[in-house]
Parts: sequence; C-alpha cells; structure tokens
Amino acid sequence: MRAQPFPPEMEIQEEDYFDYYYDEPGSEPGSIIIDPEALPTHINLIEYNPIKAYKKSDIQPKDCQSCLNNDLVSWADIQGLGSEKILREIAEVFRLHPLILEDVVNVPQRPKLEDCQNQLLIILHCIKPNSNEMGFTSEQISLVLGKNYLLTFQEDAIDDFSKLRDRIKNNQGKVRNLGADYLAYLILDTLIDNYFPVLEDYGERIELLEDLIVADPTQKTLKEIYNIRRELLALRRSIWPLRNLFNQLTREENELISKEVYIYFRDCYYHTIQILDILETYRELASSLMDVLMSSMSNKMNEVVTLLTIISSIFIPLTFIAGIYGMNFEFMPELEWHWGYFLCLLLMLSIALLMLFFFWQRGWFKFYFSKKTKW
Amino acid sequence: MRAQPFPPEMEIQEEDYFDYYYDEPGSEPGSIIIDPEALPTHINLIEYNPIKAYKKSDIQPKDCQSCLNNDLVSWADIQGLGSEKILREIAEVFRLHPLILEDVVNVPQRPKLEDCQNQLLIILHCIKPNSNEMGFTSEQISLVLGKNYLLTFQEDAIDDFSKLRDRIKNNQGKVRNLGADYLAYLILDTLIDNYFPVLEDYGERIELLEDLIVADPTQKTLKEIYNIRRELLALRRSIWPLRNLFNQLTREENELISKEVYIYFRDCYYHTIQILDILETYRELASSLMDVLMSSMSNKMNEVVTLLTIISSIFIPLTFIAGIYGMNFEFMPELEWHWGYFLCLLLMLSIALLMLFFFWQRGWFKFYFSKKTKW
Amino acid sequence: MRAQPFPPEMEIQEEDYFDYYYDEPGSEPGSIIIDPEALPTHINLIEYNPIKAYKKSDIQPKDCQSCLNNDLVSWADIQGLGSEKILREIAEVFRLHPLILEDVVNVPQRPKLEDCQNQLLIILHCIKPNSNEMGFTSEQISLVLGKNYLLTFQEDAIDDFSKLRDRIKNNQGKVRNLGADYLAYLILDTLIDNYFPVLEDYGERIELLEDLIVADPTQKTLKEIYNIRRELLALRRSIWPLRNLFNQLTREENELISKEVYIYFRDCYYHTIQILDILETYRELASSLMDVLMSSMSNKMNEVVTLLTIISSIFIPLTFIAGIYGMNFEFMPELEWHWGYFLCLLLMLSIALLMLFFFWQRGWFKFYFSKKTKW
Amino acid sequence: MRAQPFPPEMEIQEEDYFDYYYDEPGSEPGSIIIDPEALPTHINLIEYNPIKAYKKSDIQPKDCQSCLNNDLVSWADIQGLGSEKILREIAEVFRLHPLILEDVVNVPQRPKLEDCQNQLLIILHCIKPNSNEMGFTSEQISLVLGKNYLLTFQEDAIDDFSKLRDRIKNNQGKVRNLGADYLAYLILDTLIDNYFPVLEDYGERIELLEDLIVADPTQKTLKEIYNIRRELLALRRSIWPLRNLFNQLTREENELISKEVYIYFRDCYYHTIQILDILETYRELASSLMDVLMSSMSNKMNEVVTLLTIISSIFIPLTFIAGIYGMNFEFMPELEWHWGYFLCLLLMLSIALLMLFFFWQRGWFKFYFSKKTKW
Amino acid sequence: MRAQPFPPEMEIQEEDYFDYYYDEPGSEPGSIIIDPEALPTHINLIEYNPIKAYKKSDIQPKDCQSCLNNDLVSWADIQGLGSEKILREIAEVFRLHPLILEDVVNVPQRPKLEDCQNQLLIILHCIKPNSNEMGFTSEQISLVLGKNYLLTFQEDAIDDFSKLRDRIKNNQGKVRNLGADYLAYLILDTLIDNYFPVLEDYGERIELLEDLIVADPTQKTLKEIYNIRRELLALRRSIWPLRNLFNQLTREENELISKEVYIYFRDCYYHTIQILDILETYRELASSLMDVLMSSMSNKMNEVVTLLTIISSIFIPLTFIAGIYGMNFEFMPELEWHWGYFLCLLLMLSIALLMLFFFWQRGWFKFYFSKKTKW
Ligand SMILES: [Mg+2]
Ligand SMILES: [Mg+2]
Ligand SMILES: [Mg+2]
Ligand SMILES: [Mg+2]
Ligand SMILES: [Mg+2]
Ligand SMILES: [Mg+2]
Ligand SMILES: [Mg+2]
Ligand SMILES: [Mg+2]
Ligand SMILES: [Mg+2]
Ligand SMILES: [Mg+2]
Ligand SMILES: [Mg+2]
Ligand SMILES: [Mg+2]
Ligand SMILES: [Mg+2]
Ligand SMILES: [Mg+2]
Ligand SMILES: [Mg+2]
Ligand SMILES: [Mg+2]
Ligand SMILES: [Mg+2]
Ligand SMILES: [Mg+2]
Ligand SMILES: [Mg+2]
Ligand SMILES: [Mg+2]
Ligand SMILES: [Mg+2]
Ligand SMILES: [Mg+2]
Ligand SMILES: [Mg+2]
Ligand SMILES: [Mg+2]
Ligand SMILES: [Mg+2]
Ligand SMILES: [Mg+2]
Ligand SMILES: [Mg+2]
Ligand SMILES: [Mg+2]
Ligand SMILES: [Mg+2]
Ligand SMILES: [Mg+2]
Ligand SMILES: [Mg+2]
Repeated sequence: MRAQPFPPEMEIQEEDYFDYYYDEPGSEPGSIIIDPEALPTHINLIEYNPIKAYKKSDIQPKDCQSCLNNDLVSWADIQGLGSEKILREIAEVFRLHPLILEDVVNVPQRPKLEDCQNQLLIILHCIKPNSNEMGFTSEQISLVLGKNYLLTFQEDAIDDFSKLRDRIKNNQGKVRNLGADYLAYLILDTLIDNYFPVLEDYGERIELLEDLIVADPTQKTLKEIYNIRRELLALRRSIWPLRNLFNQLTREENELISKEVYIYFRDCYYHTIQILDILETYRELASSLMDVLMSSMSNKMNEVVTLLTIISSIFIPLTFIAGIYGMNFEFMPELEWHWGYFLCLLLMLSIALLMLFFFWQRGWFKFYFSKKTKW
Repeated sequence: MRAQPFPPEMEIQEEDYFDYYYDEPGSEPGSIIIDPEALPTHINLIEYNPIKAYKKSDIQPKDCQSCLNNDLVSWADIQGLGSEKILREIAEVFRLHPLILEDVVNVPQRPKLEDCQNQLLIILHCIKPNSNEMGFTSEQISLVLGKNYLLTFQEDAIDDFSKLRDRIKNNQGKVRNLGADYLAYLILDTLIDNYFPVLEDYGERIELLEDLIVADPTQKTLKEIYNIRRELLALRRSIWPLRNLFNQLTREENELISKEVYIYFRDCYYHTIQILDILETYRELASSLMDVLMSSMSNKMNEVVTLLTIISSIFIPLTFIAGIYGMNFEFMPELEWHWGYFLCLLLMLSIALLMLFFFWQRGWFKFYFSKKTKW
Repeated sequence: MRAQPFPPEMEIQEEDYFDYYYDEPGSEPGSIIIDPEALPTHINLIEYNPIKAYKKSDIQPKDCQSCLNNDLVSWADIQGLGSEKILREIAEVFRLHPLILEDVVNVPQRPKLEDCQNQLLIILHCIKPNSNEMGFTSEQISLVLGKNYLLTFQEDAIDDFSKLRDRIKNNQGKVRNLGADYLAYLILDTLIDNYFPVLEDYGERIELLEDLIVADPTQKTLKEIYNIRRELLALRRSIWPLRNLFNQLTREENELISKEVYIYFRDCYYHTIQILDILETYRELASSLMDVLMSSMSNKMNEVVTLLTIISSIFIPLTFIAGIYGMNFEFMPELEWHWGYFLCLLLMLSIALLMLFFFWQRGWFKFYFSKKTKW
Repeated sequence: MRAQPFPPEMEIQEEDYFDYYYDEPGSEPGSIIIDPEALPTHINLIEYNPIKAYKKSDIQPKDCQSCLNNDLVSWADIQGLGSEKILREIAEVFRLHPLILEDVVNVPQRPKLEDCQNQLLIILHCIKPNSNEMGFTSEQISLVLGKNYLLTFQEDAIDDFSKLRDRIKNNQGKVRNLGADYLAYLILDTLIDNYFPVLEDYGERIELLEDLIVADPTQKTLKEIYNIRRELLALRRSIWPLRNLFNQLTREENELISKEVYIYFRDCYYHTIQILDILETYRELASSLMDVLMSSMSNKMNEVVTLLTIISSIFIPLTFIAGIYGMNFEFMPELEWHWGYFLCLLLMLSIALLMLFFFWQRGWFKFYFSKKTKW
Repeated sequence: MRAQPFPPEMEIQEEDYFDYYYDEPGSEPGSIIIDPEALPTHINLIEYNPIKAYKKSDIQPKDCQSCLNNDLVSWADIQGLGSEKILREIAEVFRLHPLILEDVVNVPQRPKLEDCQNQLLIILHCIKPNSNEMGFTSEQISLVLGKNYLLTFQEDAIDDFSKLRDRIKNNQGKVRNLGADYLAYLILDTLIDNYFPVLEDYGERIELLEDLIVADPTQKTLKEIYNIRRELLALRRSIWPLRNLFNQLTREENELISKEVYIYFRDCYYHTIQILDILETYRELASSLMDVLMSSMSNKMNEVVTLLTIISSIFIPLTFIAGIYGMNFEFMPELEWHWGYFLCLLLMLSIALLMLFFFWQRGWFKFYFSKKTKW
C-alpha cells in the first residue's frame, strides 16, 4: 500500500498533468521540433523467428533496411527523441508519412490510431506512479506496425519492457511463434496494465479522505479532494481515447493483423473499459466527497453557533438583571429588602433552568452529549 | 423487512465493494494467479436427457472427457479456484483459450461476453445481501457454454443452485427437455433475480433516511447517505455491463443457442433493464436527499441564529440603559428623581415590546410557535 | 383546478410509487404468484363487426374458444388477477407463452413490448390522480393482440373504458369498421391521455411552490419540493419505456397491424414524447426550485445576522463606555466634572451615529427598508 | 435595446409558458374542441404563377376546390380557429386526415412533422417578444403542404407575413418562379428568424444580471435568475423539436419538395441549430449565475459576521474588565491605587491593540479597506 | 507566459463573445446587409503551379474570370466585407449561390460546411489572443473551394497568412505541387492551430486561480472564475461545430478533394478533437474551482464564527459574575468577606480555564494554531 495519510509538512509537488504539444500556427505541416531537453536517440533492434532471436544495440537507421525484406519479425525500439537527423533517417528507411513522424516526435499528443496504407500508427501513453510521492508520470509511446516489423518510439523509456525482451530471448510463451501484430499486442497490454497500480493509489487516497473529512474538514482536505479530481481528470484524458481506438482496431478488418490475434486486442479493449469504469467510479466518489465536505462544514458551523446561542441566551438576560440592580437610583425598594439579593439569585437561577429546558427540548445539546460517530 | 433504523452503537463493517483484479504489468498473457486464500477446486458433474439424469460429485477433470461426445446435456460445476493443476486440466479437456482461463480464475473481472469459436464465455456476479448486516457480498460466476455442455466456475459457491438441481433431478418444468442453452438461462435468471432483494434493502434504507434527515440532520445521516450512494455505485458497476451483454446475446444469431430459448434470454434482458431502472431511481433519490440534508442544516442554522438575534437585540440595548444608570458620575439628575427607577423600567419594557413586535411582524417566531411538520 | 396550498394539518399519505414485482430467485420460469389481496378474475367478452356487436359478461375461459376462429373482432377484458385456475385456462385457450402469462399476472412489471409469433404483448400502466389527495395511483394493464382478437388484463379496473364500450355499442366513429389493432390503439390512447391530468396537477403544485419559497422557506416547503421530485421520478419510470415501445411499434412492420392504423400508433408516440417533454420541464423546474430555496434560506440568514451585527456593533461599545464609568476607582477625575455625565452621553450618541452612517453606507439597512418584492 | 434594469415597482406579468393541449381521456380520436375564446375563422387565398398573382379575401372553404386542380401555386391562409363548421369543410375540401385536423385545431401542440401520403404536416410556433414588457408570446402555426398548394392555420395571426405577400404581389425575388415548397420555406424561415430578437433580449437580461448580482444579491435578483431559467426552458421546449424536424425534412427524399429547394430547408436547419446553440449558452450562463449568487451571498455573510466578531472580540473582554472594577467588594486593593484608573485604561488599550493586530494579520479588515471591485 | 495575477486596478475590458448575426425576420433569402463599420473590400489573387507563382494585389472581380479556366491553382483572398458591389460581382464571377454569399457576408455565422454542386463552403473563425489584455478576438473566415480555385473571405484580416504566402512564393514544402484542396487544408490548419495559444492562457489563468482561491476567496476571485467559465463557453461555441465539420469532410468522398489530401484533413480533425478535449478539461476544472471557492468561503466563516463563540462563551459568563457583585443590594454577605474579591477572581479563572479546555478538546483552536497549508 503506497498511499498514506498525507503529513502536514509534506510538499505535494505538482506534475504538469495537462501538458500538450501544439504547432506554431502557420508552420509547415510535417515539421518536427526537437525539445532541447530531449534525450539523444538510440535504436535497439530485436529480430526473431520461432528458431532464432538476436538483439543489436545502438545501431544506425540504415542498419534497419533489412527489416523490411527478411523473414524475421523485427522490433526497432527507438529511445529518446532528441536527434533530428537519426529520426529523419528512420522515417526515410521505413517510408513514414511526414504527419506520422510529426506525431511521433512532437510529444505529447492525444492517443490516436491512424491507418496509413501498409502501416498502422498507434499513439498512447506510458503511465507510472511516482516513486516516493503521490501522482504519476506520463510519457508518450508511439507504435508503427508494418508488414513483419514494429517500430516503437519512446520519449524516455520509463518502462523498459525487459520482461518482454526476456520472453523473446528465452522463447517463453507464444511470442516467437506469432508475428509483429502479437508483439504490438504485448506492448499495448503492458501499457494498459500500467494504469491499474496508479488507479489503485487513487482508490486508497479516496478511502483516506472519507475519514479525513470528519476528522479535519478544512482547507487541506479541500485541497486533497481538488487534487484527486484534477488528477483523475488528467488520467481520464489519457485513457478515454483508447476506448475508441481499440474498438476500431477490433471491429474493422485489417490486413496487418492476423485472425488469431484479434481476441488479444479484444482483451485490451475490455481492460480499457474496466479502467474507465473504475475511473468514473472514483470521479463520482470524489464528487460526492465534495458534497460531504460542504455538509460537514455546515454541520460544524451549526455546532459552533448552537453553543454561542445557548450561552448568550442564558447569560445575556441574566447580566441584564444584574445590571438593573447595579443602577444607582436613589429610590429602588428591592435593594433594601433583606432577602432581596437571594430572591434575585433565585430569579436568575429559574430563568437559566427554564432556558436550559427549552434548549434540551429542542435537542440543541445533541452535538455535545452524543458520542462521536465513527465514519 | 431487513433494514432497520441503524442503532448508534452499530458497527458498519465496510465491504470492499470496488475490488478488481489486474495483471502484473508485463506479465505473460494467459497467466493465472492463484489467490492463496482461494478454496480448493471441486468438480461436480450433472448429466441428463429427457429420460435420465445423474450426478457425479468430486470427480477429476479427465472424467469430464465424455461430456464432449455423449448425447447428454452435461453441467460441470467447478467450485473453488484454488487448485491450479485441476483448473489447467479442465482447460485442456474443454480446450479453453488461455485468455478465457485467465478471466475465469483471476477474479473479480468486469462482467463480459466473449464469443470464441464453439464456446461462449459469460462472466457475471452472484450478489447476496449480508446475513445480519447492511450491504451485500459479491462473487464472480463464469459460464462457458459449449455444444451440449455447460461449465460454471464459482469462487465460493454463495448460491448453491439447489432448487435448480432438484428440478433437474425430479424432472420438473422444461429443463430436462431442452439443451445446455436453457440450462445456462436458468442459472443467469437466478443470478439476475438475486439483485432484487439487495435493491429492496436500499429502498428501505432510503425511506428511513427521509425521516432521519429531519429528526437528526447530522454527521451520522450524512455518512448514511454517502454509504448508500457508494454502495449503489458499486451495484451499478456490477449490473451495468449486463445490459449490453444480454442485448448482444439476444440480437445476434448464435449457433449455440436454439431459437425457442431466445425469448428466455430476452426475459433476462428485461429484468436487467428493470434493475438498472430501479438503481438509477434510488441514485437520484439519494442525490436529492443530499440536497435536502444541506437545506435542512441551513434551516436549522437559521432557527438557531434567529433565537440568538432576538435575545441579543432585546437585551443588549436594555443592558446598555442599565449600564448608563450604573455609572458613578457625581451629577446625574435622573438618579435623584423619586420615580426615576420606575420610569427607567417602563422605558426598558417599551423597548422590549417594540422589539418583540418588530420580530413578530417579520415572522421570526415562526420557528418556535409553529408545530413541527411531519415529513 | 385540483391543487391547493397544502394546509399545515394535512396528512400527506404516501403512495408506494416505487413498487415492483420480482421473482423468488431460483424459482421456475413461468411460475405465477397470486397476490392474496388480488380481486377474483372476471371475463367480459365483446364481439363486433361493422354490422353487429354484443357483450357477454362473466363468462368462462372456454367460452372464448370461438374468438380464435370467428370473423368478429373479439375483446376479452379480464379483470382481477386473483384466480389462478381461470388465468391458466385463459392462457391455454389463447396459447399464451408461459413467460407472457407470468408478466401479465405478476404485477407491477416495467412497461414492455414482446413480439411472440402471432401475438403481441404490450404492458403499460393506467394512471389516475388520487380523488381527494395529492399524488396518483397506478395499475398495470396488459394487452395481448392476436389475429382478430384482443385480450386485456387489469389488476383492478380503475379505468373502465365505458366510453369506448359505448362507442362500440352505438357504432360511433370508426371502431366497428376496423380490426383488433385499432381497438388496441383506442385503449392505448386512453391510457396515454390519462397521464395529462396527473401532470397538470404537478404543474400547479410547482406554481404554488414558487410563491411558498419566499413566503415560507422552511422544512415544509423543502418536503414539498422533495415530494414533487420523487413523484415525478416515479411518473418518469412509468412513461419512459413507452417512448421506445411506440417507436418500435411504428418503425417495424408487423403483420398484426394494418397499414392504415400505423398513423394512429404514431399519434400515441407523439403524445408520449409530449408527456416526457413536460415531465422533464417540471423536473428541471423542481431542481431549480431547490437551488432557489437554498438561496432564499441564505438570504434570510443574511437578514437575521445583519440585524444582530448592527445592534451588537452599536450597543456593545456603548455598554463598554458605561462600564468604564461604572468602575469604583477612588480617583477617576471625569466623574467629578459637572458636565461629565452629559459629555459622556454625547460621546455615546456620536459613536452610535457614526456606526449607523457606516452601516447605511454599506447598504445594510436595505433588508429592512426596501419593500418586499412580489415574486 | 429593449431590456432595462428592472425597476423595483415593475409588475412582471407571467405568461403561461408551459401551456399544452390534451385530449379528454377516452375521447374519440379526431375530435376537435373549439376554444370558446378562439377567433372566428377567416380564409384568405393567394394564387400565383410567374405571370400573374391575385388574392381573394374571406372566401368560403368550397371556393378553395379549384386549388387542387389548377396550375397556380395556391396559398390558403386560415386565421382563427373558432368556427368548427368552416374548419371541417376545409378538411373535407383538402381531404385532411382526422388526426391532422385535430392537431391543427387543438392548440398548442408540440412541434412535429407528419408525412401523410400526398400531404406534409408541419406544426411549429410563432414567437414574438412582448411589446412593452419582458418575456414573449407564442402561437401555433400549422402548415399543410400538398401538390401545388399550401395551407397555413394560425390561432391569432401575430405575424401577418405582409412582407412575404408584398414580394408575391410585386414579383420580388424567386417566389413567383418556384412552387409551394419554396413558399413553405419562406414561411418557416420567417418563423425561425422570429426567435432571434427574443433570444437577444435574454442575452441583455443576463448581462444586466451579471452586474445586479454584486450590487444587490437579494430575493429580487434570485427571482430574475429563476425567471430567466424558466423562460429559456419554455423557449427550448418550443425550438428543440425543430432540430429533428428539419433534419428529417432535409435527409429523406420527399416528392413534394423539389431538388433545388433542399438547400433552403438546410439553411433553416442551420438557423435552428444556431438558436439552440445560443439558448444552451444562455442556459449555462444562467446556471453559473445561480452559483455566483450563492457565493456572493456567502461572501456578504462573511463580511457581516467578520465585523460582528471583530467588535465583539474587542469590547466583550474590555467590558468584563470594567465589570470587575465595578464590583462592590469591600476589600479591592486596586481601587485605592492613585493611578489605578489610568493603569486600567492602559491595560484595556493594550488588549484592544493586540486584538486589532491579530485581526489585521489574519486579513479580516480586507472587506472594509479594499476598494470595491468593479465586475 | 502571458497570464499574470491580475492587478486590482486592472480594467478587464469585456469582449462581446456571444455575438451572432441574424436576418431581419421576413427578409428576402439571400439578402446581404453591409455592416457600416466593415472595411472596404480588397481582392488579392495568387496563382501558382509547380513551375511558377505570381501575386496580383487589389484587382477587380472580373480579373478573376481566368481563374475558372486556366491550369493554375488560384487563391483569391477577399479582405474586408464593406463593398456590396464588389462582393456581388465576385459572386457572379464564381457563380456563388445566394445563400452562400449571405453566409459569407453577414457575419458572424456559426461554423458550417455546405456542399453545393462543384463548390464546398467552409465557415470558421480566426481566433487570436488579445495583445496586452486577457481574452481573445474572433473573426469569421469563409472558404469556398472549387475546381482548381479557392476563395477566402475575411472580415478584417487578423491573420495575414504571410508564412503561407512565403512558402508558395519560395516553393517550400509541397504546396506548389498539390491542388487547391491542399491549400485549403493549409489555411484550415493555421486557423485550428490558432486556438492553442488562446487555450494555453486559460490554463495559466486557472492555475493562478487555484492559488487565489485560498489567499483571497472574495468577489474578485468569484468574478474571475465566472469570466473564465464564460469565455471557455464562447470558445466552445466556436470550436465545437468543427468536430462535425471535419468528421463529415473526412468520411464522405468528395470529388473536390484528392485522395492523398484526406490524411491532412484527418490531422485537422484530430487537432480539433484535442482542442475540445483540453477545453472540456478546463471547463471541468473551472466548475470544480467554483465548488472549492464555496467550501473555502464556508471554511473562512467557520474560522470567524469559532473565534466569536470562544470569546463570547468565556467572557459573557464572567461578565455576568462581575455584574452580580456589582449589584447594590444592601445585604450581600460575600461583599464583606475579606478574601471575597480574590475568591471571586479565582472562580472566574477556573471557569475560563474549564471553557478553554472544553474548546481545546473539541479542536476549535485548530484554525488558529495550525500552520497555513500551502495549496
Ligand atoms: Mg460529475
Ligand atoms: Mg454526478
Ligand atoms: Mg455529483
Ligand atoms: Mg457532478
Ligand atoms: Mg454536477
Ligand atoms: Mg453530487
Ligand atoms: Mg444527479
Ligand atoms: Mg440529478
Ligand atoms: Mg443532484
Ligand atoms: Mg447525480
Ligand atoms: Mg449532479
Ligand atoms: Mg443534478
Ligand atoms: Mg439534485
Ligand atoms: Mg437538472
Ligand atoms: Mg438544474
Ligand atoms: Mg438534476
Ligand atoms: Mg441538476
Ligand atoms: Mg446541477
Ligand atoms: Mg441546478
Ligand atoms: Mg451545467
Ligand atoms: Mg450548475
Ligand atoms: Mg444545469
Ligand atoms: Mg446544468
Ligand atoms: Mg454550474
Ligand atoms: Mg460538470
Ligand atoms: Mg458540473
Ligand atoms: Mg457543469
Ligand atoms: Mg452542474
Ligand atoms: Mg462540481
Ligand atoms: Mg463537476
Ligand atoms: Mg453543481
């Protein structure tokens, strides 16, 4: 369990959850803008068939030329989007449409599916929970699926797919016996499954909030509700387009995807639906919690004002009576009675008891004498 | 009637209504994870035709081999998902796709319908009201319908389908005269009907809330509204996907389902619609009750503050007058008048009456002199 | 005009607006459960063609056998669902599917349309305003339309269709010249039109509420808004499924309905749409009124608190000054001044006027000196 | 600009915006109910072709017989729905279906499109802003488009279409060269355009509200927001069905509408969309303004309560100190100190300054010393 | 970064974001109304093929006649909609339908796509951020795409497309090698991309608001939230119709658009989707911020009222005790006790400490002694 009751001194560092790339208006279509902080580009190539599998690290784009012709399934994993020259060479080798190169390099884009002739572009995000903080980090991953080859473009490989590479190397499971389409599925499946642990954190934060709202219905709790709503909104922006994307992938026949792999893509579709389902549930709970917070504040105010009213209503009239007999008029007969003072005290006591009875009857002491409910 | 006005000392034990299974990101597709607390797996086989029917308890997976070939309708009921070896053997015997075995074993999944060649997978939940508490428990049930056979996988058989087994044994109704598709319908029908008594409890809790909101508009009531909204949300997550599932089942022709059984599945569809209908109604009522609670708190505050204002507005000015004649100035002519004290009291009385008239005219006593309305 | 400003002593009797029937989970499909309070079953048969028309009261199910063969249009009106034997005999005579008999007898069901071969089942509700109270009563009516005959099943005939029977008897309008489909339309049309007077009552109650919210923004008004929202929700549940039902009836060709009758069913469809339209309008108004009530309560609180603040802010400082000169220090020079007392009063007056000016300038007297606006 | 800041003495007369006609349940289909206040029926006939055009006023129904046969385009404008006999004769001459006559005479109906064989019925509303008040008036207009003729039925001709008649008379524009379908378009276009000036008024009322909410966040403003929401709801009910109506008209081929006229109907469709667009915008603004009003009231209350707290917190403790030294104990050493009184005053001053510093530090004077923002 | 914490003295000038053109009801279809403030009309013609390109400035409509016949791609850019004669001549030369001329001249219209035979009309808006203020300005741009030519109509060319003209002149990119359809895409792409910097400003304003809501939850903040909601609504009205427009453009085959250009229009579609996505996100955040503001105000009130209650509850009872011993009764035994005064002070101290303990135990000092959380 990662989430914990946030300590008051903790600094919640705010991610830029709503970031997006946009073209300079009027710029040439297909122009690519290299982010100065982007990592240099490295290409790792894995090629395999049922019999053999090998990996070449840090190769040059022109070394990929063979991928297009040979019988092996080729996976060119491009990490880092910082070297324009290399990226343009890759585009040339694989004959990527300029708009595809643009979407792949100018990150982050909204998840999308683009069906060019002979190539299928899938853009989505790799999500990881922050290691020792709340929230998550997000990175774009673009897949280009061609006839017998798969390209993956990663900003800053936060998921290194090492388990997958091991399975290819060790010929575990079906991966070596199926094509590039199944490889694409394996990557998509990993990326979709990455959403679950992030969601789980939000589930725990919401549970903690349910308690905090009664213990401490103040600014800090308010801020936490707002943050959760804001971050769930960001998550939703990232996962929502995948629903349509997988729906399209599994409905329309596509010659790049073989018949037996469709059931796997359908599985991804159902996982996406499930993530959205959980997300909407959490969003509704967070929205309800905002209502609960408002009511809780109102209730607290009621409690405070009721005490003020009880004390004022009892003592203000009594103080008035004391004030009367504190006046300095020369002729005030009561002052001279022997039992005047005690009669006066008796009067005051009667009024106070009457008032208390009135308040008790209306149930105004409930706040103070009922035990606190546990939420 | 199960629901009762919840006693203040009652401990509301919170179910994990929003639980869900997810794969370890990057894991092999089709991998199954046995929950260490899962019950050991037992197989009960019932086979029947119009003429005969028999039951075999606690058999081995390989004993089911005959199900695939003989003319009898076979129902293999697998209870407990704790024995990986047995579950893998069942999958082998019935040639289940690895993704289907995964969905069946790794619980809870979102309800779904998957149409593999020659097999139809239906995943849904068995819901039961908690025996001596509020809320409900939920368990996944997976049906695999094949040519002449039906598999059911249950986590921990909370519904033992004993009535159904008796009907098969005693040849009551049509069950022995129809195929495995009708048997699947009978199980689905039972599972759908299980939602109704759970829903009924929520109807009663909402009715009780309608009274509580006026009698006691405090934290406890707030918590109960929130709980109801939260649990209805959980119920909705469980039933919502069935709408689509049955819609798909009844619209598309499927060779595993015979023509005369379609009307039965359509009946299930209508029951699902009705459950959703009631659920949405309760959700709207619960949402309205939150608005009512807020207004009720506001109204209560108005009542309290009005009393404070009435008492303060009358006695603070009077106390001021008393204060004036309590001053110790040497030359204060009024103090020496013989009737000064009584004139002063008269002045105070006039002011008090004037104030009371002003408040009465504005209707501020309404809170205190109108009889409490019954909700 | 039925609706009136509800008198405070009035008992609002609450109908069970959200009632629904459900099967005992695990029960045999097609089982019928007779409500012990259900009325005994009576069958009235009307048969007609353009030339003749006659009515037979309180006949036996087997007397209906001829309906299936003769050339007359036959309307068998079954009132009361209390006699299982008679109902089962009717089902046998007319060859009703067990699921249809179940829906017809186990009331109330959600409105639905079921197209069996050669028979069309239509389930809907008969709504009537309560005679001397608010709210409405609802009863299920089921129509089974066959080739040349129509069955109607009524719980407790709250609408006796006497106008319709008279028109058949006296050969008014087209009814004798058209088939059982037109007869079904006439009954549906009557049932749909029954919703309008009920809706009209809610329109009037909402108009009354608009005034009450300002005159008396308290618990009673809150309760009335909640009641209206709740009852409109119940009405919506009853009418909403009819939209789809009539849409389906008028879109799809059906051999039981002749071409010239379609335009009549389309008219029913438009009326249903109009009812839903009005209903949604009222629901939105009721929802807005809840917001208005909250604002109205806030405004009232503002008014009360402003008075408290004005009076406290003026008199508390003055009382403090009086308190100072009420102290008993031996050496207090002001006390000995001849004009001390009058200077002190002057000081107090100045402070009070200054305060009043400040409040006037901020517009805080607006509540008390502006005339009440009429809503 | 029609809208003005509503003066406090102004009487807002409430239109019956949510009126609707409904049949007496059980009445004969096709029955027409003449409203006793309806105007007597007059028929004006205009007939034209590219060469000639003439107008006949106040003719009899039977004089229209020729419309059906001749080559001229005929426009029979029926004003006033008060004469049952004339209306029935018109229906006979033009062979109107009884349900169409019913919809035309029993007003107001929901806008609709009905495609009978050889005739097209279009029902919609003519909207006009009230001349010297807020709000609008609405009247039903029904068009029956046949082969070469057009009937229009008006309750009480609030739009007299004089510009259109002049264009026909003077042969301006295309009207004389095209058929009855183009004439129908011209009338529909005028009716749709009538919505714009009404909407513009609401735009201005909303702008005025934006200022009023800060200057005067009271009951009157609340009422105005509610009225605007209510009237926009009424407008929406009137315009919403037209979206579907024009969509249907422009999508489906209809032999009564010639190819070159379709683009004109599409223009009407776009105007309808635009009106709905503006309407939804205004509805969202009005809904936001309700939230703003609530916040504004809360803010005002904060301001008032803060002053109360500042004054009470300063003077109540000081008054207590004065009270102590006003006690009459025989032995109170401080009273005899020579500088006792002045030390006491000093103590009081220190406490007051400390309090003021505390309040200043918490920013509680902000309400009083910051300049009012202009909205 | 353009957005800054708005300084209190800043005048927010309000754009007329909800402006729209509408016809005088009853006016002739196709009539054009020249706005008296519209700029005079100028025509600039650019013609090009892969080999050559030239520009003619300020030409006459009849000089465009050649555009229709020659092999060059012709772009006639019409700036200023103030000269009716010129506009009518253009319409004549290019054979524009009267309704198209109307939409182009009578601005602003809702964005739309109209497919006339041989011509495609696209209406949309050019959006630019205000140079030294908040908000944005909007201008209608209409494109008429024909066989080999493109017309653009601009109100007041706020985007001069100079980068695009340079690319044509210098033969950069593909523009000279493709047709008028690609030119249309380039203009649409620029206009769509213009939305992003405007949106970015709102993102920054929302971020600033998140801080302001805690630092200063008053009228000014409220106004800013309202303004943002209002302006985002205006933006949404402008961009929403483009979603449908591009969807239609890319789905339906159109002979004016060549196959290889479709992928470019699809890119525009995805950008539109992304803009809408961001817009909805901002709208949800702004809506959440309104809830946060309300809660923040409630919290502030709680803080203020709690102080009032603490101080009143402590000092009002103490003042009452002081009042008792300030009474002037002749016989009050306590007054004569030697330690009476000190016992009295001790009693007061005990009461005060008891009260403080009670408040501390309930956590009412939390507001004052916990450190302010940073949002
Ligand atoms: Mg929401
Ligand atoms: Mg919601
Ligand atoms: Mg909500
Ligand atoms: Mg919500
Ligand atoms: Mg909401
Ligand atoms: Mg809510
Ligand atoms: Mg809701
Ligand atoms: Mg709702
Ligand atoms: Mg709600
Ligand atoms: Mg809701
Ligand atoms: Mg809501
Ligand atoms: Mg709502
Ligand atoms: Mg609500
Ligand atoms: Mg609503
Ligand atoms: Mg609403
Ligand atoms: Mg609502
Ligand atoms: Mg609402
Ligand atoms: Mg709402
Ligand atoms: Mg609302
Ligand atoms: Mg809204
Ligand atoms: Mg709202
Ligand atoms: Mg709304
Ligand atoms: Mg809304
Ligand atoms: Mg809102
Ligand atoms: Mg929202
Ligand atoms: Mg909202
Ligand atoms: Mg909203
Ligand atoms: Mg809302
Ligand atoms: Mg909200
Ligand atoms: Mg919201
Ligand atoms: Mg809201």
